[in-house]
Amino acid sequence: MDVPESHPRHRSLMARHRLEEALSAGYLSRAGLIAHGRGEAFDYLLGETTSAPARVAIRETARWLVHAKQPVLSINGNVTALVAEEYVELARTLGCPVEINLFYRTEERIRLIDEILQGYAAAARPQVTILGQEPTMAIPGVESQRGRMDAAGMAKADVVLVPLEDGDRCEGLVGLGKRVISIDLNPMSRTAQSAHLTIVDELTRCIALLRADVTAVAEAHEEPDPGWDNAANLRASKAVMKENLDW
Amino acid sequence: MDVPESHPRHRSLMARHRLEEALSAGYLSRAGLIAHGRGEAFDYLLGETTSAPARVAIRETARWLVHAKQPVLSINGNVTALVAEEYVELARTLGCPVEINLFYRTEERIRLIDEILQGYAAAARPQVTILGQEPTMAIPGVESQRGRMDAAGMAKADVVLVPLEDGDRCEGLVGLGKRVISIDLNPMSRTAQSAHLTIVDELTRCIALLRADVTAVAEAHEEPDPGWDNAANLRASKAVMKENLDW
Repeated sequence: MDVPESHPRHRSLMARHRLEEALSAGYLSRAGLIAHGRGEAFDYLLGETTSAPARVAIRETARWLVHAKQPVLSINGNVTALVAEEYVELARTLGCPVEINLFYRTEERIRLIDEILQGYAAAARPQVTILGQEPTMAIPGVESQRGRMDAAGMAKADVVLVPLEDGDRCEGLVGLGKRVISIDLNPMSRTAQSAHLTIVDELTRCIALLRADVTAVAEAHEEPDPGWDNAANLRASKAVMKENLDW
Repeated sequence: MDVPESHPRHRSLMARHRLEEALSAGYLSRAGLIAHGRGEAFDYLLGETTSAPARVAIRETARWLVHAKQPVLSINGNVTALVAEEYVELARTLGCPVEINLFYRTEERIRLIDEILQGYAAAARPQVTILGQEPTMAIPGVESQRGRMDAAGMAKADVVLVPLEDGDRCEGLVGLGKRVISIDLNPMSRTAQSAHLTIVDELTRCIALLRADVTAVAEAHEEPDPGWDNAANLRASKAVMKENLDW
């Protein structure tokens, strides 16, 4: 894969390449590749740039995560393919665990993802705990294989970050009383609509901004916005897409 | 794959399943799976239904194809996975060849797709010719592996149907003086924009309508619209998507 960084679509082409490699490596499902394509289309409508409403949602996410009592960062095959190292680094900064949650769960995929994450987690100081290898708890209302969570992770968490998450699971976590933060390029998806806070942005772009914001928020002692209006933020993202449809 | 026909997303889930199978069968590239996901997102914005402007574009496509001197229907891995049989049937109705054109061309993929198409083509009466196995002509301005065409097919054609086509190839065919008809769910893509006539609709939905329209147009001796305004039709499709973004 030889795409110069100066190429206008460098980020998008590299992301696509990583997803294709993840499929070949065996830890991404074919459905995960299709889901990436859906995201590409919505990102295209965003002009492949972090929008103003997304920027605000990223900052608010940092505040929620920094002020959480027991935050957990959920990770699946797509997130691993795109930002495994940065994601573990985010967990290290927050001092919280990463929990593997797969929509198409197989022991082989769990093993491969765990191996990748452990590589980064062991190198981190302080080390980062990876959970989800043997989840024993169930999310009520979600089909059993897809509705699992780790007793030491999501089950105990007050705030969960669920990037590129399925709608059923997201609603299930909301039903359990968690504060749910999603990262989803489709502002109309059930995931985007049911989460309490939604970042409508491309993952490889927003993860770096989120990490920087976590540090900045902690240093400045910034508090979460008690009046956060997620529906209004989603409407603002849709407005950006509508404008771009005027191209 | 057991999705009841009454399921509201039956068509979409079946299409996704067929693409996943095509990848496993070896004739679809991983990039083809991502491209399908992009299409899904735009179809989502269309409300997963054939829009009024798409309906008009389908009828006009039937007129162009019926009145063409030497039409050729181009097919790739995605089109094969989704509508191979109906596509060969469309060629039979028109009495024209189908030409295999792959963006990620390998001899193995050509062989597998040819095998599938020949199965339907041999059963058709009159039989349908499948081309593109050994294309000797080049589309100027397109990278060599991707810019090939059959001397007996696209190279001689006056009107070409290129569903789910790459932008470079589409522009190249326009540059060769062909009348180019694309089927593309993204009304802003280079393919959609550079074609002379663009159907912004999902392939499995519009192919049945197109086949019926070819028969109806031929029987009614309907002529192509000399004032066809593709840009206006694309704007109308974008307007539909913008409305749906108000959900």
